[in-house]
Amino acid sequence: MTHFADRIADAVGRKRSQVVVGLDPVPDLLPVELRGEAVLGREHAAAACARFCCGIVDAVAPYAVAVKPQSAFFEALGSDGIRALEEVCDYARAAELLVIADAKRGDIGSTARAYAAAFVEPRGELAPLADAVTVNPYLGRDAVEPFVAACRRDHAGMFCLVKTSNAGGADVQDVRLSDGTVLWQHVAELVREWGDDLIGDGGISAVGAVVGATFPQEVAEARRLLPRAPFLLPGVGAQGGRPSDLAPAFTSGPASALVTASRSIIYAYRSGVEDDWRAAAGGATAHLAHEVWRAAGW
Amino acid sequence: MTHFADRIADAVGRKRSQVVVGLDPVPDLLPVELRGEAVLGREHAAAACARFCCGIVDAVAPYAVAVKPQSAFFEALGSDGIRALEEVCDYARAAELLVIADAKRGDIGSTARAYAAAFVEPRGELAPLADAVTVNPYLGRDAVEPFVAACRRDHAGMFCLVKTSNAGGADVQDVRLSDGTVLWQHVAELVREWGDDLIGDGGISAVGAVVGATFPQEVAEARRLLPRAPFLLPGVGAQGGRPSDLAPAFTSGPASALVTASRSIIYAYRSGVEDDWRAAAGGATAHLAHEVWRAAGW
Repeated sequence: MTHFADRIADAVGRKRSQVVVGLDPVPDLLPVELRGEAVLGREHAAAACARFCCGIVDAVAPYAVAVKPQSAFFEALGSDGIRALEEVCDYARAAELLVIADAKRGDIGSTARAYAAAFVEPRGELAPLADAVTVNPYLGRDAVEPFVAACRRDHAGMFCLVKTSNAGGADVQDVRLSDGTVLWQHVAELVREWGDDLIGDGGISAVGAVVGATFPQEVAEARRLLPRAPFLLPGVGAQGGRPSDLAPAFTSGPASALVTASRSIIYAYRSGVEDDWRAAAGGATAHLAHEVWRAAGW
Repeated sequence: MTHFADRIADAVGRKRSQVVVGLDPVPDLLPVELRGEAVLGREHAAAACARFCCGIVDAVAPYAVAVKPQSAFFEALGSDGIRALEEVCDYARAAELLVIADAKRGDIGSTARAYAAAFVEPRGELAPLADAVTVNPYLGRDAVEPFVAACRRDHAGMFCLVKTSNAGGADVQDVRLSDGTVLWQHVAELVREWGDDLIGDGGISAVGAVVGATFPQEVAEARRLLPRAPFLLPGVGAQGGRPSDLAPAFTSGPASALVTASRSIIYAYRSGVEDDWRAAAGGATAHLAHEVWRAAGW
Protein backbone atom coordinates (compact mmCIF):
# COMPACT_ATOMS: atom_id res chain seq x y z
CA MET A 1 0.00 0.00 0.00
CA THR A 2 1.44 3.37 -1.02
CA HIS A 3 1.02 6.76 0.68
CA PHE A 4 -2.51 8.17 0.33
CA ALA A 5 -1.42 11.30 -1.57
CA ASP A 6 0.57 9.13 -3.99
CA ARG A 7 -2.49 6.93 -4.57
CA ILE A 8 -4.39 10.11 -5.48
CA ALA A 9 -1.59 11.24 -7.79
CA ASP A 10 -1.53 7.88 -9.55
CA ALA A 11 -5.30 7.96 -10.13
CA VAL A 12 -5.26 11.61 -11.28
CA GLY A 13 -2.48 10.87 -13.77
CA ARG A 14 -4.12 7.75 -15.16
CA LYS A 15 -7.58 9.23 -15.55
CA ARG A 16 -6.68 12.87 -16.23
CA SER A 17 -9.32 13.75 -13.67
CA GLN A 18 -9.48 15.37 -10.25
CA VAL A 19 -13.16 14.64 -9.75
CA VAL A 20 -14.68 12.96 -6.71
CA VAL A 21 -18.29 11.88 -7.04
CA GLY A 22 -20.32 12.38 -3.87
CA LEU A 23 -22.78 9.59 -3.10
CA ASP A 24 -25.77 11.18 -1.32
CA PRO A 25 -28.55 8.61 -1.83
CA VAL A 26 -32.00 9.95 -0.97
CA PRO A 27 -34.83 7.42 -1.46
CA ASP A 28 -37.26 10.06 -2.79
CA LEU A 29 -34.80 11.12 -5.49
CA LEU A 30 -33.95 7.66 -6.83
CA PRO A 31 -34.79 6.77 -10.43
CA VAL A 32 -38.36 5.53 -10.77
CA GLU A 33 -37.26 1.92 -11.32
CA LEU A 34 -35.71 1.94 -7.82
CA ARG A 35 -38.04 4.35 -6.06
CA GLY A 36 -40.91 1.87 -6.01
CA GLU A 37 -38.89 -0.48 -3.90
CA ALA A 38 -37.71 2.29 -1.61
CA VAL A 39 -41.21 2.95 -0.25
CA LEU A 40 -41.50 -0.61 1.14
CA GLY A 41 -39.57 0.22 4.32
CA ARG A 42 -36.03 0.95 5.43
CA GLU A 43 -34.53 -2.39 4.50
CA HIS A 44 -35.83 -2.11 0.95
CA ALA A 45 -34.91 1.58 0.76
CA ALA A 46 -31.35 0.75 1.83
CA ALA A 47 -31.09 -2.00 -0.78
CA ALA A 48 -32.38 0.37 -3.45
CA CYS A 49 -29.83 3.02 -2.38
CA ALA A 50 -27.04 0.44 -2.58
CA ARG A 51 -28.09 -0.59 -6.08
CA PHE A 52 -28.29 3.05 -7.12
CA CYS A 53 -24.83 3.88 -5.74
CA CYS A 54 -23.26 0.79 -7.31
CA GLY A 55 -24.80 1.78 -10.65
CA ILE A 56 -23.30 5.27 -10.23
CA VAL A 57 -19.92 3.71 -9.42
CA ASP A 58 -20.01 1.72 -12.68
CA ALA A 59 -20.97 4.81 -14.66
CA VAL A 60 -18.41 7.23 -13.22
CA ALA A 61 -15.41 4.94 -12.66
CA PRO A 62 -13.67 5.87 -15.93
CA TYR A 63 -13.87 9.62 -15.21
CA ALA A 64 -13.55 9.96 -11.42
CA VAL A 65 -10.65 9.25 -9.08
CA ALA A 66 -12.78 8.63 -6.02
CA VAL A 67 -16.26 8.42 -4.63
CA LYS A 68 -17.30 10.23 -1.46
CA PRO A 69 -20.18 8.45 0.25
CA GLN A 70 -21.91 10.87 2.63
CA SER A 71 -22.41 8.87 5.80
CA ALA A 72 -25.49 10.83 6.88
CA PHE A 73 -27.67 9.57 4.06
CA PHE A 74 -26.82 5.97 4.88
CA GLU A 75 -27.22 6.54 8.63
CA ALA A 76 -30.71 7.93 7.99
CA LEU A 77 -31.65 4.35 7.01
CA GLY A 78 -30.30 2.85 10.22
CA SER A 79 -28.30 -0.36 10.35
CA ASP A 80 -29.66 -1.36 6.94
CA GLY A 81 -28.23 1.87 5.60
CA ILE A 82 -24.81 1.15 7.10
CA ARG A 83 -24.87 -2.30 5.51
CA ALA A 84 -25.55 -0.54 2.19
CA LEU A 85 -22.63 1.84 2.88
CA GLU A 86 -20.32 -1.13 3.46
CA GLU A 87 -21.49 -2.75 0.23
CA VAL A 88 -21.02 0.45 -1.78
CA CYS A 89 -17.53 1.12 -0.38
CA ASP A 90 -16.41 -2.43 -1.17
CA TYR A 91 -17.90 -2.17 -4.64
CA ALA A 92 -16.15 1.13 -5.35
CA ARG A 93 -12.81 -0.23 -4.22
CA ALA A 94 -13.26 -3.25 -6.50
CA ALA A 95 -13.86 -0.75 -9.33
CA GLU A 96 -10.45 0.77 -8.43
CA LEU A 97 -11.89 3.98 -7.12
CA LEU A 98 -10.55 5.59 -3.96
CA VAL A 99 -13.16 5.94 -1.23
CA ILE A 100 -13.40 9.09 0.89
CA ALA A 101 -15.91 8.63 3.69
CA ASP A 102 -17.61 11.96 4.31
CA ALA A 103 -18.33 11.64 8.01
CA LYS A 104 -16.93 14.86 9.53
CA ARG A 105 -16.20 13.09 12.81
CA GLY A 106 -14.55 14.69 15.80
CA ASP A 107 -14.44 13.58 19.42
CA ILE A 108 -12.12 13.22 22.42
CA GLY A 109 -9.13 10.91 21.95
CA SER A 110 -10.53 7.61 23.23
CA THR A 111 -13.65 8.08 21.11
CA ALA A 112 -11.80 9.37 18.06
CA ARG A 113 -9.82 6.11 18.12
CA ALA A 114 -13.10 4.24 17.66
CA TYR A 115 -14.05 6.53 14.75
CA ALA A 116 -10.67 5.95 13.10
CA ALA A 117 -11.26 2.21 13.51
CA ALA A 118 -14.73 2.55 11.98
CA PHE A 119 -13.59 4.39 8.88
CA VAL A 120 -9.92 4.02 7.97
CA GLU A 121 -8.44 1.04 9.79
CA PRO A 122 -8.57 -2.61 8.68
CA ARG A 123 -11.83 -4.27 9.82
CA GLY A 124 -10.44 -7.55 11.09
CA GLU A 125 -9.49 -9.39 7.92
CA LEU A 126 -11.35 -6.92 5.71
CA ALA A 127 -9.80 -3.81 4.15
CA PRO A 128 -10.68 -0.47 5.78
CA LEU A 129 -14.12 0.87 4.89
CA ALA A 130 -12.49 3.87 3.21
CA ASP A 131 -9.13 5.25 2.07
CA ALA A 132 -9.75 8.56 3.80
CA VAL A 133 -12.27 10.30 6.04
CA THR A 134 -13.35 13.88 6.65
CA VAL A 135 -12.70 15.19 10.15
CA ASN A 136 -14.00 18.12 12.23
CA PRO A 137 -11.34 20.20 14.06
CA TYR A 138 -13.48 21.72 16.86
CA LEU A 139 -12.08 19.38 19.53
CA GLY A 140 -8.45 20.13 18.67
CA ARG A 141 -5.31 18.10 18.37
CA ASP A 142 -6.05 15.08 20.56
CA ALA A 143 -9.33 14.53 18.70
CA VAL A 144 -7.51 14.44 15.37
CA GLU A 145 -4.49 12.43 16.49
CA PRO A 146 -6.06 8.95 16.02
CA PHE A 147 -6.76 9.81 12.38
CA VAL A 148 -3.23 11.13 11.92
CA ALA A 149 -1.97 7.88 13.44
CA ALA A 150 -3.99 5.91 10.88
CA CYS A 151 -2.42 8.03 8.12
CA ARG A 152 1.01 7.10 9.47
CA ARG A 153 0.36 3.42 10.19
CA ASP A 154 -2.30 2.30 7.69
CA HIS A 155 -1.53 4.73 4.82
CA ALA A 156 -4.95 6.31 5.31
CA GLY A 157 -5.80 9.88 4.42
CA MET A 158 -7.85 12.54 6.18
CA PHE A 159 -9.39 15.84 5.17
CA CYS A 160 -9.95 18.28 8.00
CA LEU A 161 -12.72 20.85 7.70
CA VAL A 162 -11.11 24.28 7.31
CA LYS A 163 -13.51 26.57 5.41
CA THR A 164 -16.75 24.82 4.55
CA SER A 165 -18.89 25.49 1.48
CA ASN A 166 -22.06 26.64 3.28
CA ALA A 167 -22.98 30.25 4.06
CA GLY A 168 -23.55 29.50 7.77
CA GLY A 169 -19.97 28.34 8.20
CA ALA A 170 -19.06 32.00 8.58
CA ASP A 171 -20.83 32.07 11.99
CA VAL A 172 -17.81 30.25 13.44
CA GLN A 173 -15.10 29.95 10.77
CA ASP A 174 -14.95 33.65 9.85
CA VAL A 175 -14.83 34.98 13.40
CA ARG A 176 -12.05 37.58 13.72
CA LEU A 177 -9.20 36.64 16.06
CA SER A 178 -7.10 38.90 18.23
CA ASP A 179 -4.15 38.63 15.80
CA GLY A 180 -6.25 39.94 12.90
CA THR A 181 -6.72 36.58 11.15
CA VAL A 182 -9.97 34.62 11.14
CA LEU A 183 -10.64 31.25 12.75
CA TRP A 184 -10.40 29.09 9.63
CA GLN A 185 -6.92 30.48 8.96
CA HIS A 186 -5.90 29.41 12.46
CA VAL A 187 -7.35 25.95 11.79
CA ALA A 188 -5.38 25.84 8.52
CA GLU A 189 -2.18 26.39 10.52
CA LEU A 190 -3.10 23.47 12.79
CA VAL A 191 -3.76 21.25 9.75
CA ARG A 192 -0.33 22.18 8.37
CA GLU A 193 1.33 21.13 11.64
CA TRP A 194 -0.63 17.85 11.80
CA GLY A 195 0.41 16.89 8.29
CA ASP A 196 3.98 18.19 8.26
CA ASP A 197 5.69 14.82 8.74
CA LEU A 198 3.31 12.84 6.54
CA ILE A 199 4.43 14.01 3.09
CA GLY A 200 4.35 11.45 0.26
CA ASP A 201 6.81 10.97 -2.58
CA GLY A 202 4.94 13.53 -4.68
CA GLY A 203 5.36 16.24 -2.05
CA ILE A 204 1.75 16.18 -0.83
CA SER A 205 0.66 15.25 2.70
CA ALA A 206 -1.80 12.56 3.80
CA VAL A 207 -3.47 15.26 5.92
CA GLY A 208 -5.66 17.43 3.75
CA ALA A 209 -8.17 20.24 4.05
CA VAL A 210 -11.79 20.74 3.09
CA VAL A 211 -12.17 24.18 1.50
CA GLY A 212 -15.46 25.24 -0.10
CA ALA A 213 -15.30 25.84 -3.85
CA THR A 214 -18.02 28.41 -3.18
CA PHE A 215 -15.31 30.75 -1.78
CA PRO A 216 -12.58 31.10 -4.48
CA GLN A 217 -10.62 33.80 -2.63
CA GLU A 218 -10.45 31.61 0.46
CA VAL A 219 -9.32 28.67 -1.68
CA ALA A 220 -6.35 30.73 -2.88
CA GLU A 221 -5.54 31.93 0.63
CA ALA A 222 -5.82 28.39 2.01
CA ARG A 223 -3.38 27.17 -0.63
CA ARG A 224 -0.90 29.83 0.50
CA LEU A 225 -1.24 28.64 4.11
CA LEU A 226 -1.20 24.93 3.21
CA PRO A 227 1.18 24.41 0.27
CA ARG A 228 1.47 20.64 0.80
CA ALA A 229 -2.07 19.69 1.85
CA PRO A 230 -4.37 17.92 -0.57
CA PHE A 231 -7.57 19.93 -0.88
CA LEU A 232 -11.05 18.49 -1.06
CA LEU A 233 -13.20 21.15 -2.70
CA PRO A 234 -16.97 20.70 -2.30
CA GLY A 235 -19.58 23.14 -3.49
CA VAL A 236 -19.33 22.82 -7.27
CA GLY A 237 -22.65 22.13 -8.97
CA ALA A 238 -25.76 22.30 -6.78
CA GLN A 239 -24.10 24.76 -4.39
CA GLY A 240 -22.93 27.12 -7.13
CA GLY A 241 -19.11 26.85 -7.14
CA ARG A 242 -17.41 27.09 -10.57
CA PRO A 243 -14.45 24.96 -11.69
CA SER A 244 -12.95 27.91 -13.56
CA ASP A 245 -12.42 29.70 -10.22
CA LEU A 246 -10.38 26.88 -8.73
CA ALA A 247 -7.01 27.23 -10.46
CA PRO A 248 -5.25 28.49 -7.29
CA ALA A 249 -6.03 25.17 -5.56
CA PHE A 250 -3.82 23.35 -8.08
CA THR A 251 -0.68 25.44 -7.77
CA SER A 252 0.92 22.61 -5.73
CA GLY A 253 0.43 20.13 -8.59
CA PRO A 254 -2.29 18.46 -10.65
CA ALA A 255 -3.06 16.01 -7.83
CA SER A 256 -2.97 18.57 -5.02
CA ALA A 257 -6.73 19.16 -5.08
CA LEU A 258 -9.87 17.14 -5.69
CA VAL A 259 -13.16 18.66 -6.77
CA THR A 260 -16.24 16.94 -5.42
CA ALA A 261 -19.78 17.17 -6.76
CA SER A 262 -22.72 15.10 -5.58
CA ARG A 263 -26.27 16.02 -6.50
CA SER A 264 -25.33 17.62 -9.84
CA ILE A 265 -23.82 14.29 -10.93
CA ILE A 266 -25.82 11.49 -9.33
CA TYR A 267 -29.16 13.15 -10.01
CA ALA A 268 -28.13 14.58 -13.41
CA TYR A 269 -30.84 12.44 -15.04
CA ARG A 270 -33.48 14.56 -13.30
CA SER A 271 -32.53 17.59 -15.40
CA GLY A 272 -33.82 15.60 -18.36
CA VAL A 273 -30.99 15.90 -20.87
CA GLU A 274 -30.34 12.16 -20.68
CA ASP A 275 -33.02 9.62 -19.70
CA ASP A 276 -30.70 6.89 -18.46
CA TRP A 277 -29.52 7.81 -14.97
CA ARG A 278 -26.23 5.94 -15.34
CA ALA A 279 -25.39 7.59 -18.65
CA ALA A 280 -26.40 10.99 -17.25
CA ALA A 281 -24.07 10.56 -14.26
CA GLY A 282 -21.20 9.34 -16.43
CA GLY A 283 -21.65 12.24 -18.82
CA ALA A 284 -21.81 14.82 -16.04
CA THR A 285 -18.64 13.39 -14.49
CA ALA A 286 -16.72 13.38 -17.77
CA HIS A 287 -17.80 16.97 -18.40
CA LEU A 288 -16.77 18.15 -14.93
CA ALA A 289 -13.45 16.27 -15.16
CA HIS A 290 -12.68 18.06 -18.41
CA GLU A 291 -13.58 21.47 -16.98
CA VAL A 292 -11.51 20.94 -13.83
CA TRP A 293 -8.52 19.56 -15.75
CA ARG A 294 -8.52 22.64 -17.95
CA ALA A 295 -8.89 24.98 -14.96
CA ALA A 296 -6.05 23.22 -13.15
CA GLY A 297 -3.84 24.10 -16.11
CA TRP A 298 -1.34 21.25 -15.92
CA MET B 1 -44.92 14.04 24.07
CA THR B 2 -43.76 16.88 26.33
CA HIS B 3 -40.90 19.34 25.76
CA PHE B 4 -37.45 17.72 26.07
CA ALA B 5 -36.33 19.90 28.99
CA ASP B 6 -39.55 19.08 30.82
CA ARG B 7 -38.97 15.36 30.27
CA ILE B 8 -35.54 15.84 31.87
CA ALA B 9 -37.07 17.76 34.78
CA ASP B 10 -39.65 15.05 35.37
CA ALA B 11 -36.98 12.33 35.44
CA VAL B 12 -34.66 14.36 37.67
CA GLY B 13 -37.47 15.00 40.15
CA ARG B 14 -38.64 11.39 40.25
CA LYS B 15 -35.19 9.86 40.60
CA ARG B 16 -33.42 12.62 42.53
CA SER B 17 -30.60 12.20 40.06
CA GLN B 18 -28.91 14.24 37.35
CA VAL B 19 -26.73 11.40 36.15
CA VAL B 20 -26.40 10.24 32.55
CA VAL B 21 -24.60 6.95 32.03
CA GLY B 22 -22.39 6.90 28.95
CA LEU B 23 -22.46 3.64 27.01
CA ASP B 24 -19.00 3.17 25.46
CA PRO B 25 -18.85 -0.55 24.74
CA VAL B 26 -15.34 -1.79 23.91
CA PRO B 27 -15.13 -5.55 23.19
CA ASP B 28 -11.76 -5.92 24.97
CA LEU B 29 -13.16 -4.40 28.16
CA LEU B 30 -16.32 -6.51 28.40
CA PRO B 31 -16.82 -8.81 31.38
CA VAL B 32 -15.16 -12.16 30.83
CA GLU B 33 -18.51 -13.93 30.34
CA LEU B 34 -19.13 -11.74 27.26
CA ARG B 35 -15.57 -11.21 26.09
CA GLY B 36 -15.21 -14.79 24.87
CA GLU B 37 -18.00 -14.26 22.39
CA ALA B 38 -16.62 -10.91 21.29
CA VAL B 39 -13.51 -12.46 19.76
CA LEU B 40 -15.55 -14.54 17.28
CA GLY B 41 -15.92 -11.65 14.82
CA ARG B 42 -17.81 -8.37 14.49
CA GLU B 43 -21.32 -9.82 14.49
CA HIS B 44 -20.66 -11.67 17.75
CA ALA B 45 -18.81 -8.69 19.22
CA ALA B 46 -21.77 -6.44 18.42
CA ALA B 47 -24.20 -8.90 20.03
CA ALA B 48 -21.98 -9.07 23.12
CA CYS B 49 -21.84 -5.27 23.30
CA ALA B 50 -25.64 -5.08 23.04
CA ARG B 51 -26.07 -7.59 25.85
CA PHE B 52 -23.56 -5.68 27.96
CA CYS B 53 -25.27 -2.33 27.39
CA CYS B 54 -28.73 -3.76 28.10
CA GLY B 55 -27.38 -5.23 31.33
CA ILE B 56 -26.00 -1.81 32.25
CA VAL B 57 -29.38 -0.24 31.44
CA ASP B 58 -31.11 -2.65 33.86
CA ALA B 59 -28.56 -1.92 36.56
CA VAL B 60 -28.52 1.88 36.33
CA ALA B 61 -32.17 2.62 35.47
CA PRO B 62 -33.20 3.37 39.08
CA TYR B 63 -30.40 5.90 39.57
CA ALA B 64 -29.88 7.56 36.18
CA VAL B 65 -32.14 9.83 34.15
CA ALA B 66 -30.64 8.95 30.79
CA VAL B 67 -28.11 6.85 28.95
CA LYS B 68 -25.73 8.34 26.41
CA PRO B 69 -24.65 5.75 23.86
CA GLN B 70 -21.44 6.90 22.17
CA SER B 71 -22.05 6.26 18.48
CA ALA B 72 -18.34 5.76 17.68
CA PHE B 73 -18.04 2.53 19.65
CA PHE B 74 -21.02 1.04 17.84
CA GLU B 75 -19.84 2.34 14.45
CA ALA B 76 -16.48 0.64 15.01
CA LEU B 77 -18.38 -2.65 14.67
CA GLY B 78 -19.95 -1.68 11.35
CA SER B 79 -23.58 -2.35 10.48
CA ASP B 80 -23.75 -5.03 13.18
CA GLY B 81 -22.72 -2.36 15.66
CA ILE B 82 -25.46 0.00 14.48
CA ARG B 83 -27.98 -2.79 14.87
CA ALA B 84 -26.73 -3.17 18.44
CA LEU B 85 -27.09 0.59 18.95
CA GLU B 86 -30.70 0.44 17.77
CA GLU B 87 -31.42 -2.45 20.13
CA VAL B 88 -29.82 -0.69 23.10
CA CYS B 89 -31.66 2.60 22.46
CA ASP B 90 -35.02 0.79 22.22
CA TYR B 91 -34.22 -1.18 25.36
CA ALA B 92 -33.30 1.96 27.31
CA ARG B 93 -36.47 3.73 26.27
CA ALA B 94 -38.52 0.72 27.37
CA ALA B 95 -36.75 1.03 30.75
CA GLU B 96 -38.02 4.64 30.85
CA LEU B 97 -34.61 6.18 30.46
CA LEU B 98 -34.06 9.14 28.18
CA VAL B 99 -31.58 8.45 25.38
CA ILE B 100 -28.97 11.02 24.38
CA ALA B 101 -27.12 9.88 21.24
CA ASP B 102 -23.55 11.10 21.50
CA ALA B 103 -22.77 11.57 17.84
CA LYS B 104 -21.36 15.12 17.62
CA ARG B 105 -22.67 15.52 14.09
CA GLY B 106 -22.34 18.66 12.00
CA ASP B 107 -22.69 19.17 8.27
CA ILE B 108 -24.21 21.49 5.65
CA GLY B 109 -27.99 21.88 5.75
CA SER B 110 -29.08 19.17 3.31
CA THR B 111 -26.81 16.65 5.04
CA ALA B 112 -27.66 17.80 8.55
CA ARG B 113 -31.29 17.06 7.73
CA ALA B 114 -30.30 13.43 7.13
CA TYR B 115 -28.43 13.34 10.45
CA ALA B 116 -31.46 14.76 12.26
CA ALA B 117 -33.56 12.04 10.62
CA ALA B 118 -31.06 9.39 11.69
CA PHE B 119 -31.01 10.37 15.35
CA VAL B 120 -34.00 12.37 16.57
CA GLU B 121 -36.87 12.03 14.12
CA PRO B 122 -39.43 9.20 13.96
CA ARG B 123 -38.09 6.26 11.93
CA GLY B 124 -41.17 5.47 9.88
CA GLU B 125 -43.53 3.88 12.39
CA LEU B 126 -40.79 3.53 15.01
CA ALA B 127 -39.97 6.12 17.66
CA PRO B 128 -36.84 8.22 17.09
CA LEU B 129 -33.58 6.45 17.89
CA ALA B 130 -32.90 8.99 20.64
CA ASP B 131 -34.50 11.82 22.61
CA ALA B 132 -31.55 14.11 21.95
CA VAL B 133 -28.27 14.23 20.06
CA THR B 134 -24.96 16.02 20.50
CA VAL B 135 -24.06 18.46 17.71
CA ASN B 136 -20.85 20.13 16.52
CA PRO B 137 -21.08 23.89 15.82
CA TYR B 138 -18.12 24.32 13.40
CA LEU B 139 -20.39 24.62 10.33
CA GLY B 140 -22.58 27.32 11.86
CA ARG B 141 -26.25 28.06 11.94
CA ASP B 142 -27.51 26.29 8.80
CA ALA B 143 -25.80 23.08 9.93
CA VAL B 144 -27.60 23.19 13.27
CA GLU B 145 -30.99 24.33 11.99
CA PRO B 146 -32.32 20.80 11.11
CA PHE B 147 -31.69 19.73 14.70
CA VAL B 148 -33.38 22.88 16.03
CA ALA B 149 -36.31 22.10 13.73
CA ALA B 150 -36.54 18.59 15.23
CA CYS B 151 -36.58 20.18 18.71
CA ARG B 152 -39.50 22.35 17.62
CA ARG B 153 -41.46 19.73 15.69
CA ASP B 154 -40.65 16.39 17.31
CA HIS B 155 -39.91 17.58 20.87
CA ALA B 156 -36.33 16.43 20.46
CA GLY B 157 -33.38 17.88 22.32
CA MET B 158 -29.87 18.78 21.24
CA PHE B 159 -26.64 19.55 23.04
CA CYS B 160 -24.19 21.67 21.08
CA LEU B 161 -20.48 21.35 21.83
CA VAL B 162 -19.35 24.56 23.49
CA LYS B 163 -16.31 23.81 25.69
CA THR B 164 -15.29 20.16 25.50
CA SER B 165 -13.71 18.15 28.31
CA ASN B 166 -10.43 17.29 26.57
CA ALA B 167 -7.19 19.27 26.85
CA GLY B 168 -6.80 19.58 23.07
CA GLY B 169 -10.11 21.41 22.75
CA ALA B 170 -8.19 24.55 23.70
CA ASP B 171 -6.44 24.49 20.29
CA VAL B 172 -9.63 25.83 18.75
CA GLN B 173 -12.14 26.62 21.53
CA ASP B 174 -9.82 28.87 23.59
CA VAL B 175 -8.52 30.93 20.69
CA ARG B 176 -8.68 34.64 21.60
CA LEU B 177 -11.06 36.74 19.49
CA SER B 178 -10.71 40.37 18.46
CA ASP B 179 -13.33 41.43 21.03
CA GLY B 180 -11.31 39.93 23.89
CA THR B 181 -13.51 36.85 24.41
CA VAL B 182 -12.53 33.32 23.34
CA LEU B 183 -14.16 31.19 20.68
CA TRP B 184 -16.23 28.94 22.95
CA GLN B 185 -17.85 32.02 24.48
CA HIS B 186 -18.85 33.14 20.99
CA VAL B 187 -20.29 29.66 20.34
CA ALA B 188 -22.19 29.90 23.62
CA GLU B 189 -23.83 33.09 22.35
CA LEU B 190 -24.88 31.28 19.17
CA VAL B 191 -26.35 28.41 21.23
CA ARG B 192 -28.34 30.92 23.28
CA GLU B 193 -29.80 32.42 20.09
CA TRP B 194 -30.64 29.01 18.62
CA GLY B 195 -32.51 27.97 21.77
CA ASP B 196 -34.16 31.26 22.69
CA ASP B 197 -37.63 30.39 21.39
CA LEU B 198 -37.59 26.75 22.51
CA ILE B 199 -38.05 27.18 26.25
CA GLY B 200 -40.11 24.54 28.08
CA ASP B 201 -42.59 25.01 30.94
CA GLY B 202 -39.75 24.72 33.47
CA GLY B 203 -37.84 27.63 31.92
CA ILE B 204 -35.14 25.50 30.27
CA SER B 205 -34.54 25.26 26.51
CA ALA B 206 -34.47 22.17 24.30
CA VAL B 207 -31.15 23.48 22.94
CA GLY B 208 -28.38 22.67 25.38
CA ALA B 209 -24.63 22.90 25.65
CA VAL B 210 -21.82 20.43 26.24
CA VAL B 211 -19.40 21.91 28.77
CA GLY B 212 -16.55 19.85 30.17
CA ALA B 213 -16.73 19.13 33.91
CA THR B 214 -12.94 19.17 33.74
CA PHE B 215 -13.09 23.00 33.52
CA PRO B 216 -15.14 24.24 36.53
CA GLN B 217 -14.45 27.94 35.92
CA GLU B 218 -15.67 27.61 32.36
CA VAL B 219 -18.78 25.78 33.57
CA ALA B 220 -19.63 28.78 35.76
CA GLU B 221 -18.93 31.25 32.96
CA ALA B 222 -20.98 29.18 30.49
CA ARG B 223 -23.91 29.22 32.92
CA ARG B 224 -23.70 33.01 33.05
CA LEU B 225 -23.80 33.16 29.22
CA LEU B 226 -26.49 30.48 28.89
CA PRO B 227 -28.94 30.83 31.79
CA ARG B 228 -31.66 28.75 30.12
CA ALA B 229 -29.66 26.03 28.36
CA PRO B 230 -29.55 22.51 29.77
CA PHE B 231 -25.93 21.53 30.27
CA LEU B 232 -24.45 18.16 29.51
CA LEU B 233 -21.30 17.88 31.61
CA PRO B 234 -18.87 15.13 30.59
CA GLY B 235 -15.48 14.56 32.12
CA VAL B 236 -16.40 13.30 35.60
CA GLY B 237 -14.69 10.04 36.54
CA ALA B 238 -12.08 8.70 34.11
CA GLN B 239 -11.28 12.22 32.87
CA GLY B 240 -10.84 13.69 36.37
CA GLY B 241 -13.75 16.13 36.79
CA ARG B 242 -15.25 16.33 40.33
CA PRO B 243 -18.98 16.64 41.10
CA SER B 244 -18.25 19.00 43.98
CA ASP B 245 -16.96 21.60 41.50
CA LEU B 246 -20.17 21.64 39.47
CA ALA B 247 -22.58 23.61 41.67
CA PRO B 248 -22.55 26.65 39.32
CA ALA B 249 -24.04 24.52 36.54
CA PHE B 250 -27.20 24.04 38.62
CA THR B 251 -27.97 27.66 39.41
CA SER B 252 -30.76 27.57 36.82
CA GLY B 253 -32.50 24.70 38.63
CA PRO B 254 -32.01 21.08 39.68
CA ALA B 255 -32.75 19.85 36.15
CA SER B 256 -30.69 22.48 34.34
CA ALA B 257 -27.61 20.26 34.07
CA LEU B 258 -26.84 16.59 33.59
CA VAL B 259 -23.58 14.98 34.63
CA THR B 260 -22.39 12.19 32.42
CA ALA B 261 -19.87 9.47 33.26
CA SER B 262 -19.04 6.49 31.11
CA ARG B 263 -16.00 4.34 31.80
CA SER B 264 -16.01 4.97 35.57
CA ILE B 265 -19.52 3.48 35.72
CA ILE B 266 -19.81 0.81 33.07
CA TYR B 267 -16.37 -0.65 33.79
CA ALA B 268 -16.56 -0.08 37.57
CA TYR B 269 -16.34 -3.86 38.04
CA ARG B 270 -12.77 -3.74 36.76
CA SER B 271 -11.64 -1.78 39.82
CA GLY B 272 -12.49 -4.93 41.79
CA VAL B 273 -14.62 -3.59 44.64
CA GLU B 274 -17.64 -5.50 43.33
CA ASP B 275 -17.34 -8.69 41.26
CA ASP B 276 -20.70 -8.47 39.50
CA TRP B 277 -20.46 -5.94 36.68
CA ARG B 278 -24.12 -4.99 36.86
CA ALA B 279 -24.02 -4.42 40.59
CA ALA B 280 -20.79 -2.45 40.24
CA ALA B 281 -22.34 -0.17 37.60
CA GLY B 282 -25.51 0.30 39.65
CA GLY B 283 -23.51 1.11 42.76
CA ALA B 284 -21.26 3.59 40.93
CA THR B 285 -24.30 5.33 39.45
CA ALA B 286 -26.10 5.57 42.78
CA HIS B 287 -22.95 6.97 44.38
CA LEU B 288 -22.42 9.57 41.65
CA ALA B 289 -26.10 10.55 41.69
CA HIS B 290 -25.86 11.20 45.43
CA GLU B 291 -22.68 13.27 45.05
CA VAL B 292 -24.11 15.36 42.21
CA TRP B 293 -27.45 15.88 43.97
CA ARG B 294 -25.62 17.18 47.02
CA ALA B 295 -23.36 19.43 44.90
CA ALA B 296 -26.36 20.81 43.04
CA GLY B 297 -27.73 21.95 46.39
CA TRP B 298 -31.47 21.84 45.64
